[in-house]
Amino acid sequence: MKTMNRILNSKWLVSGVSLTLGTGIGAGLVGLKKANESPIRETLSDIYNRIPIIPIPNVDAATDLNKYHTGQVGTARATEIMKYGFPALTHIKNRESYVLSYDPRNRTAQWVIEQLNIPNLTGESDRKCSEFKEDDSVHVYHRSTNWDYKGSGFDRGHLAAAANHKWNQKAMDETFYLSNTAPQNPHLNQKAWNGLEKYCRSLTRHYQNVFVCTGPLYLPRTEADGKMYVKYQVIGKNNVAVPTHFFKVVILEKRSGEVELRSYVMPNAPVDENTPLERFLVPVESIERASGLLFVTNIMKRTSSLRAITAGGK
Amino acid sequence: MKTMNRILNSKWLVSGVSLTLGTGIGAGLVGLKKANESPIRETLSDIYNRIPIIPIPNVDAATDLNKYHTGQVGTARATEIMKYGFPALTHIKNRESYVLSYDPRNRTAQWVIEQLNIPNLTGESDRKCSEFKEDDSVHVYHRSTNWDYKGSGFDRGHLAAAANHKWNQKAMDETFYLSNTAPQNPHLNQKAWNGLEKYCRSLTRHYQNVFVCTGPLYLPRTEADGKMYVKYQVIGKNNVAVPTHFFKVVILEKRSGEVELRSYVMPNAPVDENTPLERFLVPVESIERASGLLFVTNIMKRTSSLRAITAGGK
Repeated sequence: MKTMNRILNSKWLVSGVSLTLGTGIGAGLVGLKKANESPIRETLSDIYNRIPIIPIPNVDAATDLNKYHTGQVGTARATEIMKYGFPALTHIKNRESYVLSYDPRNRTAQWVIEQLNIPNLTGESDRKCSEFKEDDSVHVYHRSTNWDYKGSGFDRGHLAAAANHKWNQKAMDETFYLSNTAPQNPHLNQKAWNGLEKYCRSLTRHYQNVFVCTGPLYLPRTEADGKMYVKYQVIGKNNVAVPTHFFKVVILEKRSGEVELRSYVMPNAPVDENTPLERFLVPVESIERASGLLFVTNIMKRTSSLRAITAGGK
Repeated sequence: MKTMNRILNSKWLVSGVSLTLGTGIGAGLVGLKKANESPIRETLSDIYNRIPIIPIPNVDAATDLNKYHTGQVGTARATEIMKYGFPALTHIKNRESYVLSYDPRNRTAQWVIEQLNIPNLTGESDRKCSEFKEDDSVHVYHRSTNWDYKGSGFDRGHLAAAANHKWNQKAMDETFYLSNTAPQNPHLNQKAWNGLEKYCRSLTRHYQNVFVCTGPLYLPRTEADGKMYVKYQVIGKNNVAVPTHFFKVVILEKRSGEVELRSYVMPNAPVDENTPLERFLVPVESIERASGLLFVTNIMKRTSSLRAITAGGK
């Protein structure tokens, strides 16, 4: 299918794991096995060992660094090296409806996490009362504006969806910050992606909690010279990055404490909305490798029962 | 000149400020004026107002988030949203010779800061005793390896330079972590970039301290369709990003407390090593916009006397 070929052409091939759709190759995941098999926790210890407790310095890090234990070097020297401050720290935005990490180089979010449940989806909030607005908590050098999108041919595609936050007008309004949008193909935004968002909401009927992490991807592809390139458009005066793909990692929490994981990728292009959503399921490892993010290790700290749903599973 | 045209073709044009070389357009900087004029501090207040104190959550952020004041939302809700952990936090590596922020998506550093002074440049350490090695503090999904570089045509270009850390073999060894390298054109690495590194070292004879921040850039350029694209090669099984350009922001500290700033950009391509280094001076604002980083606001917290050196200045 055209949709699938687009994604497959991106060839996100790392360590022999490709971003293959509809083939249920989740068995390649560390610490995860196919649906209907219990997870093996032991194999995760290797990963834990590779992830040190990274010290996250405070904003005035040059003076506060001494408070953090790095285990590697006397901090007096680091404090001296960093005398003139950290050029960047994690840009976490903590809002009513979501928590977001901003990518100041690409002028869009790196990831946004929301929590969906029936109370949050219910209410009188109306998106007609909301307006897209600049996020003035982002430095003006790294902020996107409505003008950047104007005439670009791209929608201001919500990452945390407006309709997920009907419970509170402020919560809905905050999904209209442009830090929570990315340039998105209008057909995708209005059809297949919208379908995926609706599906996520429908899952609240069967699960106690639905956590959704959404973000952009910038996937490489092989060009005529046989080499691989990442290539993406940037729009407007502020050069807002147009992602090549979008992902959603859906963490489903049952009353029993069992956790299920469904991970989707769609290309930032028209997608036939009649394609079954299962065709966009990918192994979460593909998203972890491509995005620079990690999900499984964090989830495994909170549950001893994780099941990854891949195509071919439930 | 060919070198300059390459950079100019990238056309990093934001708010009418282009990454122009050799024209001394530093006057466009907020809070900075041309060399030989005293800085205006008042205009910086606008910037300070736009930069909130960003809460940096600890690694176990889901439970620790309550400790941070966001001023925006009750943290109980954020704690709930983030129940399954943060997919990424700042990846700070704190080493003998440098402090580094890692970019797990591009498998190279986002920035590296070193402190150069005569004692650090002096010693018996020998790069022949050092070997390029994987940084096993980076998750295996996001780590570059020697194999990635093999046959790629690119050098493992040091960001923090080995020769800056002769004082201690361990400090020198740590510059050989592949997290401190990026794929670099061999001619650039061995000629013009090496010349810039030597120049930075020579500045220690005239300044009490020399702080150098080095990093990659991924600059957009206009293509035949009239649209702007960011395009860069990725190499090896781990898709290590090949930067289009490299920057160095050099913070020079005088005994008097006065601070000077010199900011350079070179394309990741052969550059005539006889080109005067002043030709690669750019307004620091260009680097701040393109990289997603901020330097001036931090520096202004430590000094009331900042002078930006642009071509045409001293």
